[in-house]
Amino acid sequence: MAGWSGRVVKIAVINGPNLNLLGTREPEIYGTTTLAQIEERLRVVASELNAEIGFAQYNGEGEIVGAIHDMRGTADGALVNAGAYAHSSLAIRDALAAIAIPFVEVHLTNIFAREPERRRSVLAGAAVALVCGFGAVSYELALRGLLSKLKQDA
Amino acid sequence: MAGWSGRVVKIAVINGPNLNLLGTREPEIYGTTTLAQIEERLRVVASELNAEIGFAQYNGEGEIVGAIHDMRGTADGALVNAGAYAHSSLAIRDALAAIAIPFVEVHLTNIFAREPERRRSVLAGAAVALVCGFGAVSYELALRGLLSKLKQDA
Amino acid sequence: MAGWSGRVVKIAVINGPNLNLLGTREPEIYGTTTLAQIEERLRVVASELNAEIGFAQYNGEGEIVGAIHDMRGTADGALVNAGAYAHSSLAIRDALAAIAIPFVEVHLTNIFAREPERRRSVLAGAAVALVCGFGAVSYELALRGLLSKLKQDA
Amino acid sequence: MAGWSGRVVKIAVINGPNLNLLGTREPEIYGTTTLAQIEERLRVVASELNAEIGFAQYNGEGEIVGAIHDMRGTADGALVNAGAYAHSSLAIRDALAAIAIPFVEVHLTNIFAREPERRRSVLAGAAVALVCGFGAVSYELALRGLLSKLKQDA
Amino acid sequence: MAGWSGRVVKIAVINGPNLNLLGTREPEIYGTTTLAQIEERLRVVASELNAEIGFAQYNGEGEIVGAIHDMRGTADGALVNAGAYAHSSLAIRDALAAIAIPFVEVHLTNIFAREPERRRSVLAGAAVALVCGFGAVSYELALRGLLSKLKQDA
Amino acid sequence: MAGWSGRVVKIAVINGPNLNLLGTREPEIYGTTTLAQIEERLRVVASELNAEIGFAQYNGEGEIVGAIHDMRGTADGALVNAGAYAHSSLAIRDALAAIAIPFVEVHLTNIFAREPERRRSVLAGAAVALVCGFGAVSYELALRGLLSKLKQDA
Amino acid sequence: MAGWSGRVVKIAVINGPNLNLLGTREPEIYGTTTLAQIEERLRVVASELNAEIGFAQYNGEGEIVGAIHDMRGTADGALVNAGAYAHSSLAIRDALAAIAIPFVEVHLTNIFAREPERRRSVLAGAAVALVCGFGAVSYELALRGLLSKLKQDA
Amino acid sequence: MAGWSGRVVKIAVINGPNLNLLGTREPEIYGTTTLAQIEERLRVVASELNAEIGFAQYNGEGEIVGAIHDMRGTADGALVNAGAYAHSSLAIRDALAAIAIPFVEVHLTNIFAREPERRRSVLAGAAVALVCGFGAVSYELALRGLLSKLKQDA
Amino acid sequence: MAGWSGRVVKIAVINGPNLNLLGTREPEIYGTTTLAQIEERLRVVASELNAEIGFAQYNGEGEIVGAIHDMRGTADGALVNAGAYAHSSLAIRDALAAIAIPFVEVHLTNIFAREPERRRSVLAGAAVALVCGFGAVSYELALRGLLSKLKQDA
Amino acid sequence: MAGWSGRVVKIAVINGPNLNLLGTREPEIYGTTTLAQIEERLRVVASELNAEIGFAQYNGEGEIVGAIHDMRGTADGALVNAGAYAHSSLAIRDALAAIAIPFVEVHLTNIFAREPERRRSVLAGAAVALVCGFGAVSYELALRGLLSKLKQDA
Amino acid sequence: MAGWSGRVVKIAVINGPNLNLLGTREPEIYGTTTLAQIEERLRVVASELNAEIGFAQYNGEGEIVGAIHDMRGTADGALVNAGAYAHSSLAIRDALAAIAIPFVEVHLTNIFAREPERRRSVLAGAAVALVCGFGAVSYELALRGLLSKLKQDA
Amino acid sequence: MAGWSGRVVKIAVINGPNLNLLGTREPEIYGTTTLAQIEERLRVVASELNAEIGFAQYNGEGEIVGAIHDMRGTADGALVNAGAYAHSSLAIRDALAAIAIPFVEVHLTNIFAREPERRRSVLAGAAVALVCGFGAVSYELALRGLLSKLKQDA
Repeated sequence: MAGWSGRVVKIAVINGPNLNLLGTREPEIYGTTTLAQIEERLRVVASELNAEIGFAQYNGEGEIVGAIHDMRGTADGALVNAGAYAHSSLAIRDALAAIAIPFVEVHLTNIFAREPERRRSVLAGAAVALVCGFGAVSYELALRGLLSKLKQDA
Repeated sequence: MAGWSGRVVKIAVINGPNLNLLGTREPEIYGTTTLAQIEERLRVVASELNAEIGFAQYNGEGEIVGAIHDMRGTADGALVNAGAYAHSSLAIRDALAAIAIPFVEVHLTNIFAREPERRRSVLAGAAVALVCGFGAVSYELALRGLLSKLKQDA
Repeated sequence: MAGWSGRVVKIAVINGPNLNLLGTREPEIYGTTTLAQIEERLRVVASELNAEIGFAQYNGEGEIVGAIHDMRGTADGALVNAGAYAHSSLAIRDALAAIAIPFVEVHLTNIFAREPERRRSVLAGAAVALVCGFGAVSYELALRGLLSKLKQDA
Repeated sequence: MAGWSGRVVKIAVINGPNLNLLGTREPEIYGTTTLAQIEERLRVVASELNAEIGFAQYNGEGEIVGAIHDMRGTADGALVNAGAYAHSSLAIRDALAAIAIPFVEVHLTNIFAREPERRRSVLAGAAVALVCGFGAVSYELALRGLLSKLKQDA
Repeated sequence: MAGWSGRVVKIAVINGPNLNLLGTREPEIYGTTTLAQIEERLRVVASELNAEIGFAQYNGEGEIVGAIHDMRGTADGALVNAGAYAHSSLAIRDALAAIAIPFVEVHLTNIFAREPERRRSVLAGAAVALVCGFGAVSYELALRGLLSKLKQDA
Repeated sequence: MAGWSGRVVKIAVINGPNLNLLGTREPEIYGTTTLAQIEERLRVVASELNAEIGFAQYNGEGEIVGAIHDMRGTADGALVNAGAYAHSSLAIRDALAAIAIPFVEVHLTNIFAREPERRRSVLAGAAVALVCGFGAVSYELALRGLLSKLKQDA
Repeated sequence: MAGWSGRVVKIAVINGPNLNLLGTREPEIYGTTTLAQIEERLRVVASELNAEIGFAQYNGEGEIVGAIHDMRGTADGALVNAGAYAHSSLAIRDALAAIAIPFVEVHLTNIFAREPERRRSVLAGAAVALVCGFGAVSYELALRGLLSKLKQDA
Repeated sequence: MAGWSGRVVKIAVINGPNLNLLGTREPEIYGTTTLAQIEERLRVVASELNAEIGFAQYNGEGEIVGAIHDMRGTADGALVNAGAYAHSSLAIRDALAAIAIPFVEVHLTNIFAREPERRRSVLAGAAVALVCGFGAVSYELALRGLLSKLKQDA
Repeated sequence: MAGWSGRVVKIAVINGPNLNLLGTREPEIYGTTTLAQIEERLRVVASELNAEIGFAQYNGEGEIVGAIHDMRGTADGALVNAGAYAHSSLAIRDALAAIAIPFVEVHLTNIFAREPERRRSVLAGAAVALVCGFGAVSYELALRGLLSKLKQDA
Repeated sequence: MAGWSGRVVKIAVINGPNLNLLGTREPEIYGTTTLAQIEERLRVVASELNAEIGFAQYNGEGEIVGAIHDMRGTADGALVNAGAYAHSSLAIRDALAAIAIPFVEVHLTNIFAREPERRRSVLAGAAVALVCGFGAVSYELALRGLLSKLKQDA
Repeated sequence: MAGWSGRVVKIAVINGPNLNLLGTREPEIYGTTTLAQIEERLRVVASELNAEIGFAQYNGEGEIVGAIHDMRGTADGALVNAGAYAHSSLAIRDALAAIAIPFVEVHLTNIFAREPERRRSVLAGAAVALVCGFGAVSYELALRGLLSKLKQDA
Repeated sequence: MAGWSGRVVKIAVINGPNLNLLGTREPEIYGTTTLAQIEERLRVVASELNAEIGFAQYNGEGEIVGAIHDMRGTADGALVNAGAYAHSSLAIRDALAAIAIPFVEVHLTNIFAREPERRRSVLAGAAVALVCGFGAVSYELALRGLLSKLKQDA
């Protein structure tokens, strides 16, 4: 999450377990776009909208907690796709509450149309907004929405 | 929902009970933008993206079912904010399944951060995607996402 | 529900939301017979069995309640396919209880072999009998059964 | 709900599905007083207490939502007997919250001594008070209590 | 509960735990009227309506059971505010059923708009009616309603 | 289940525990028609419709499983009234699935209007249709409906 | 259950699965008395109290149903220890209801102090009384109690 | 509980709330025998079986706890009919466990055939045995069973 | 709770049902220290820390409610071990809320490692802190913690 | 289960309802190997490992209970595939506990990846081990594992 | 997981939290065999059956997810004992689904005979088979079964 | 956890996710004391009481499991504040059980007065005691209590 420069709005993007496999993992569910391609696209959009953006992906719950801690003082908002941890991790929810910056929960798939154990997010109650089901486009919409919110509240 | 013209992508926007009061109803929760302003903004975005757009708002569950029936053959996709009916109406879900066009569920607020009885949608399982929590901007993001989906699948 | 004539047994048939689409809606589930064809067949059977028959279909819960009220004093029994409202509507159940005529609950599909939320009917507890799963034939069997019951109790 | 005159306290009385049948519907449960008789009695009491009163009854959920919207700016308080919708309708609850006037929930019967599905009201959490079980007298007590509350808060 | 005189209708008023603190206990919830003031007001109303009235308040469940036993043969009806015991006490419910006189359940606050554990009454199923949410006025309305019921059934 | 002859449609009728007592067992619930009378009536209807029919009744779950096994290759469809086992027996459901012939679940009474433990059937999810509540007539309607289904699919 | 003689009160004792092993099966739970010894003791007590007694034990649910049917017209009351079937068998409950004679549910152990799945009996709701926890003595007490009841009602 | 004399087996009988009304309270449920008559009968039986017996009845949970404490060192076993407290009182269960003497739970009615909230006893898990449903005779059977148990274990 | 003197911090210690038996009751669970010894130890600690301390123990819920009322204006904080009532008593919770002084919930044993029905406290939500599992030492730690809290907030 | 000879380890194999159909019943789920082929294979493996083996298959719950009783004193261990009864039969569980020999629960399919009602076994809590999902090979693995356990404990 | 050589079947063995302590941790539950000894035994069996085998053990959920990712393209099947994570980890389930190779769930103990929270596996629904309860032998049986499955499907 | 010296009692203190942020994270909930200050205070208290103390804090569940393993043979007891993992982690509970040393569960806040998902600890059932709600003082009280316990058991 290093390398923020100057005084522009800074957005951190946190991805959780198994998202490093994106593009090859169960492509009939998650699509063929890779995480690198998503990040590239987000960089372009951020640049258009005068925002700076940083990325992190971890499989471990504790490492995600640590990454969130590191955002304190360096990010103005976040996109969080915690993958399977979204359905259970109070530790990640606590970390997000602790740093007190607005975040949008993002999912590639419409989690509410999947297996019962995926239809509930413990993070959503702490998020400002949620976007899911547009595949890789979910991230871009979430970024636009978050920047719009931050401008409005500024 | 009348008045589609020519051969461009057509999107219907259905709003449910109490959304006619938008802008004046509990503004600390729902904001001060009116439904008319939202519709105006969506017309601009649709026009930019070469789409046509139509609107309907009803307080009655049966009238919403009827409005959805009327979309058959006249709309290529829909944005649906069924308001309080989103949490219980199998009839609306059936109507959406019956006409078999892709729709995005939209909410002004992040319903997953509200009272327990609002944290579940019976429509979401039939939707292709869901956007909530960005206030009036939720509609615009949903429109952009839906058009992107329709293009991709075309 | 108008037009009962003379002193023969009179049966009302009430259909609920989305049943107007019958024949074209999800035909792999609901079949290709239209509601008009079902009504035509029921007229023939009723006539054979010396009964008179009337029909109503509404998408709105309140309109169905009203239609049931109108049966009071004009119908001796009813076939009720309340569609999706069968799983939740106490108002329709109350209306049926209020007019105190025997009715048979009808469904095209075997609702007990479908999604969990459709496996329970709040109307069934007030019905005298239930027929489901025979497609359009369900109505005819229900009509025969109801007339047999009415004769027996007469 | 039309026709409020001058500057006195104005009370709206909203009745829900099946209450138009009052007096003839299951009289062993609901008594033999008709809705017209109840309204007449409430007019007398209102007049004694220098209040104005208006009435509405609908079988449809959407129409009740609309009637509640129409009370905005024209009523100072309301008596609401939503009938069977009291047990499930978030849309009516939202409408009542949207117009932000105090209302008393009323039922003819003691709903807590009836079938399990009637022992819970989704409206009660938004009401200021609840009266049930006194038959037609429930309305009169609710009116007296509401006027007493309004005076106290004035 | 001593001191009933002559042959007029007699009403007993039973108050449960913590109600002796009324007026000073959490006044933002329960108001500033004391129990003595409520009793005084009820005496006036009873006298107007030609009824006699007696009072009891206990913190102990067993003492309330005993007080209810003592009402047998001496009271024609009762107002019961069992306070926190209303949510759990089968013993009090049994005592009320044992003496077989009609009673109205009373609460100062609208218990259905409070914490989940207070939204259910085990007494309500045995009561003839329920009034709650009008503060000290709840008692007066309950008394009027009960006397009206007793007259009607006489 | 012995004695099928020639090449016509063959239907097996399986009855479960306590149905041998029909006609004398709790007649206010189950009616006064005996099982023998029902079987006689079904023979007449089957003969009219050019079908052959066979009967079995057992009190034991294992014997019913065995009877269902014996239907393999000898029956084209079945009517199954498993009595109390309908509410719990996965073994009977497995046997019906194993022989893979269409069956209709039948009950004399409307099981959905009875005690809670009888309102659920574990067989219904494997059945093609369900008829209940018409007393002895339920069997006849089920037979007509099943034969209609078999013809349609032939 | 054969061999009732003359016109004295006749009691049937039905034992369910695994009770044939009594005395050797898990003796630390069920004691060392055998079923034969219990039956001998019951014969003595019955004889003292001028009653006749008969016995049956089956491992199969269907055989128990059949044995209960056979009691019709030949027994005036029954002691039923259905063993593990007590916790689940609606078929046995139905059989007991069908023959309409009073029965006492008996268990050697205090089933309410055992594993959760044994703390509930589906038969108890149809029984007139229940005795459990006295080991082999449970049967004797149940017999005395049942004869006392029959005398009282005679 | 005073007055145990000499060295014979001593049994205490504890009765809970509302049992003082026995004989006049809901006689269609609880019978017409009074508590004094039951105690008299138990004295006779105890005397026959060379046991001493003492009695206590309280409406208050705390007083019952105290009465149980007083049994320590003075009673060898107990019959406990805690009335409505049987369904909820951990304090009484704790008191019984604290004094560590065997007790039999007794009820006049078959609590498992009554309303759902009465079908569960929190005391039963600590009891050695349970007798219910024989009316006043339940006590006598429980006494015989308990004395038999005490002799067996001596 | 009498006898507070001068202007030092005053702490009340309330003990509930069965705690009078401490030291002899189930010593393998609750230890051999008596309540008197605990009180003596608390007096020493209080004196060291310049606090005054008073004690009360009751088996009755109503008496505990009364004792809490008596603390109003005479105690600055409290230690509450409500014993078995901790798991169910809203009346005690209400009393503690009514007098609005900070209290610490205390248990000898670790209630969360015991039977399921003891793993939940209805008081804990109103307490400032909770200490359990240290046997008699739990009280001393709770006292030290409470005094530390009171000093901090002073 | 007859015919054990000499002093070698003896294993009984019990199969429940519908397993007689193996090889032809729903082969896409259960495979094409017949029960006879499985038994033949187990005989070979047992012989290799110096064990004797016997077989039983029943559709009836009571007959399985009886077969288990018969294993007492004649078998040292058992493989049990109770089929659908595995999900509900306390009677079979009791029988297995009564004879007190170690048994392994076996299933052809991975029951935990099937319909919800098959994901729970009431027998598993009494078994020493469980093998499922390897089709016919499950039995062989279970046999090897059980013999290894018996040797270890010998 | 490094060091696969040549073209033979390759099996990965993944062990989860606390399994590194095997042999010394709660030996009365988990036995005295160490993880090293289990791995040694599996190497011998694999070698006999012409398979190659690799091992990994991690305490962290994220590290297990990573280890599963590393199996992609290098393993043909897996044995997975996820320890306590088996009961909750959707992230591990997702990782196993993502790499799409067949795996067998393994446990030393019979998890279905342990505490309630261990009786459910979220992994089992994605596994091809499950073996538990044979202690260290569970792994060997699972290996044999998995290799048999792979051969069969090849 | 390194560096234990000599033969005094040694206590390990384990802190879980987000506790590294203490003092700055949501100070209105968790206070302004930092983790370093708490550790400093504990060192002083330990030194007074002749105990040695060591500290560890991790955000990852697997690392906490590892830290607990490292305590084996080097610590005599532990204070464990597992933060959000306290509500869900069986892996940490297993690790604590595996090393078999007594530990006290500690929380800064009264977790039983917070959001529902925080009111339950899966660790508490394995702990000897629990202290929560005193802020940073909770640790000191837990240390004193634990040392007292260890001395008592020595």
